[in-house]
Amino acid sequence: MEIVAEPGVPQVVVTREFAAPARKLLRAHTEPDLLARWLGPDWLKITVDVLEPRDGGRWRYTHTDPSGERYAFFGLYHGTPTTERIVQTYEFDHQPGVVYLNIITFDERGDRTVLRQNTVFPSVEDRDYYVRSGMEKGLRPSWDRLATLVTEGI
Amino acid sequence: MEIVAEPGVPQVVVTREFAAPARKLLRAHTEPDLLARWLGPDWLKITVDVLEPRDGGRWRYTHTDPSGERYAFFGLYHGTPTTERIVQTYEFDHQPGVVYLNIITFDERGDRTVLRQNTVFPSVEDRDYYVRSGMEKGLRPSWDRLATLVTEGI
Repeated sequence: MEIVAEPGVPQVVVTREFAAPARKLLRAHTEPDLLARWLGPDWLKITVDVLEPRDGGRWRYTHTDPSGERYAFFGLYHGTPTTERIVQTYEFDHQPGVVYLNIITFDERGDRTVLRQNTVFPSVEDRDYYVRSGMEKGLRPSWDRLATLVTEGI
Repeated sequence: MEIVAEPGVPQVVVTREFAAPARKLLRAHTEPDLLARWLGPDWLKITVDVLEPRDGGRWRYTHTDPSGERYAFFGLYHGTPTTERIVQTYEFDHQPGVVYLNIITFDERGDRTVLRQNTVFPSVEDRDYYVRSGMEKGLRPSWDRLATLVTEGI
């Protein structure tokens, strides 16, 4: 997994190659039962509240920590998710009013697929908040579970 | 009007103060008849095809040049537009698949309002394309007309 977060640029780009076709990665992102199997840090429980993977559809999921504290993320799909691209707005209920854009692309190379997650933020401060909130600590184990899911689980 | 487009940063921020309250600027952005009176370069005719200023609503407008060529822009509202903020995704039909995020904020100061339009792009190349496509040439006369509309027209 490669993370690029350049100083002064309101953007984070994370890439990783998976030993699976794009259609499995798409399913893992757009089917609630599958998404719940890999997304989020280990120590949080995830509930997928809404997942409408179509142009203008909504999505929302909630992480709950052991003390019962909740962290909800929600937004909209711009365009229908495909095996090439998912575009969605993001908002975190603990940081209301800060909206960012997440662009996931799937690039198939033979029987492997490079997943690129490009997130752009309204400001560098908002990007830094996101990175400091434990992005990498959450993303790394999530994508490890995603790798297991798409290579062995579906 | 101040335009900030820093090298290497996929963002354009444009600000201008208007001698009008935020509620008039909001109306000028969210009522189709009013939007059509100020938006777009002088040499293009605008048609507001869809304007649903609510969370998850769609928007779409088309510019037509004297030869009949059409340029359509469309997207979704993330959150309901208010006198504080409008957040919308953007896509240009001549550049399909490139989605950006537009965050307009209204900051009232006495009987004046500072409008800040913060646009973030998937990449610096996409930002540069947007700037080179005549952004300033379109925006400057548009905002001049917007100023006239909100101070005298509504």
